[in-house]
Amino acid sequence: MHVLISGAAGMIGQRLAARIAREGACAGTPLTRLTLTDVVTPPRPAGFDGPIEARTEDSSSAAVAAELAALRPDIVFHLAAIISGEAERDFDKGYRINLDGMRNLLEAIRQESAKNGPYVPKLVFSSSSGIFGAPFPPAISDEFHVTPLTSYGAQKAIGELLLADYSRRGFVDGVGIRFPSIVIRPGKPNASAGGFFSGIIREPLQGQEALLPVADDVIFTHASPRSAVGFLLHGASLSREQLGPRINLSMPGVCVTVGEQIEALRRIAGDRAVKLIRRAPDKAAADIVKGWPTRFDAKRALSLGFTAEQDFDEIIRVHIEDDLGGRLPN
Amino acid sequence: MHVLISGAAGMIGQRLAARIAREGACAGTPLTRLTLTDVVTPPRPAGFDGPIEARTEDSSSAAVAAELAALRPDIVFHLAAIISGEAERDFDKGYRINLDGMRNLLEAIRQESAKNGPYVPKLVFSSSSGIFGAPFPPAISDEFHVTPLTSYGAQKAIGELLLADYSRRGFVDGVGIRFPSIVIRPGKPNASAGGFFSGIIREPLQGQEALLPVADDVIFTHASPRSAVGFLLHGASLSREQLGPRINLSMPGVCVTVGEQIEALRRIAGDRAVKLIRRAPDKAAADIVKGWPTRFDAKRALSLGFTAEQDFDEIIRVHIEDDLGGRLPN
Repeated sequence: MHVLISGAAGMIGQRLAARIAREGACAGTPLTRLTLTDVVTPPRPAGFDGPIEARTEDSSSAAVAAELAALRPDIVFHLAAIISGEAERDFDKGYRINLDGMRNLLEAIRQESAKNGPYVPKLVFSSSSGIFGAPFPPAISDEFHVTPLTSYGAQKAIGELLLADYSRRGFVDGVGIRFPSIVIRPGKPNASAGGFFSGIIREPLQGQEALLPVADDVIFTHASPRSAVGFLLHGASLSREQLGPRINLSMPGVCVTVGEQIEALRRIAGDRAVKLIRRAPDKAAADIVKGWPTRFDAKRALSLGFTAEQDFDEIIRVHIEDDLGGRLPN
Repeated sequence: MHVLISGAAGMIGQRLAARIAREGACAGTPLTRLTLTDVVTPPRPAGFDGPIEARTEDSSSAAVAAELAALRPDIVFHLAAIISGEAERDFDKGYRINLDGMRNLLEAIRQESAKNGPYVPKLVFSSSSGIFGAPFPPAISDEFHVTPLTSYGAQKAIGELLLADYSRRGFVDGVGIRFPSIVIRPGKPNASAGGFFSGIIREPLQGQEALLPVADDVIFTHASPRSAVGFLLHGASLSREQLGPRINLSMPGVCVTVGEQIEALRRIAGDRAVKLIRRAPDKAAADIVKGWPTRFDAKRALSLGFTAEQDFDEIIRVHIEDDLGGRLPN
């Protein structure tokens, strides 16, 4: 089983590569080869003795996509993307990486098959709940309309449509994974509009102040980076028959208010941590978040066996285990 | 008011051009110039004394799109498309004309604005109920999921997403019109899977036999070519404020079974006409039609003032008026 990961230097990409290497398998089949690609050199994961190629390149170009398809990986995890804020600031770059990158990959696979004999890999596409746009019903069903309110959301929604059509035509065996908010992201605070969802937990756990730009009653659906990797791997294991024609799936998650996030933090790290959250209302941030989806019922994903955390306390504990060495810093 | 119509040699394009020329106005503003483009030379409509340019070209190319945008039409009706059956047979051509053609047009408009000063035309896009795919609820609401089961449907759905994003960013002032089945198409029987919806009325009205490949209980939503033109013109007249962010709209129509179509024919042209319909069950045709949407509630379009016929009898009468000179042939 040869596995290719694009966007392999990203937060999710690194964890996915690490887990596949550690387990020496993917989708129930032993790993024989791992190819990683990103615009910055992806780190080489430990635990796998077979060949690992770490490529530094822009995989969104047609030429690089053709090179990658010629390697004929059995499973492709297509995670490479420009994030929401950057796609909004740089219109051309967003379309080039998020739309053309996806289309070039699909075409490269189709052309590889036409040129060198049948080749239909499993293609796991990282989509986003950003394909949805307000106004929303109380819970977003699997049959809810796709009306993104960002260029990133539009590009991901187009990627889903391409993936479904190329799959229906038999060129790839696709599955689209619509991530909820993935928290708690490790590292420094960043400028993304939703960064505070991680920040109000991550910084206080480290004894540092965190800013909260929105009201406590803002509702959002979250899952951990560990669950995100689990979604991708579970997606890779599903057959066409299990998926049916609707291959793009909203993932489950923990739906909580910001206030409930804070109470989970209090249960795990005490009042001292909670006191480090400073309310700093920011109308611009609040307006952006208002357009984002709140609550998913994710029935299909749950019935197909996708799982996330049960509550926000568990998301915090996963962060402590996976990013803080299993214990709270003093 | 300078109006551009792509696909102007097509059945709807010709009627749209004819009506705009006859009325000497579009969206409530006097017509000053009319530009028509298609891969075959569009006919010049009568009744308008101002400049009419009939261009013969492939407007899906970036170069031609740039030429058209440089003309700075106030309203663009983008009807140029490869139809469903052809897009399914010729994968590359479908994506080139239906997806790249739309994207090139949007980009040409954006670049024209960037190069030569603000230019934000009204862009009316002909989409299709083919963006939806089975299984369906009893009535397809305005919030139903977009899951096309044809390449044509995928390309139209992507066109809608691009239109919405370019509109949201202020590059165009877009509206997407999702046509139901448009009947009764004049002319000869054609090979399209849904051609019989027109054929079982059109041929018997002319004293000719028509084949019916599906069962009498097949349900579908129809509107006349006259209504199709009306949808486009009404779309052009709506403001951004009226449309809000969800600019792609399912149109109303007459939802009937094939059996009800036949009874309408009987009321208008008698048993003699109905006897010319010959049942010729065709599993392939039936299977294709099974994936098509049946019934729309079209609440938003109705509330925005779009109108279609009230029953199938009226659709037949419109055909007799518009295509048969107002009376039944003997």
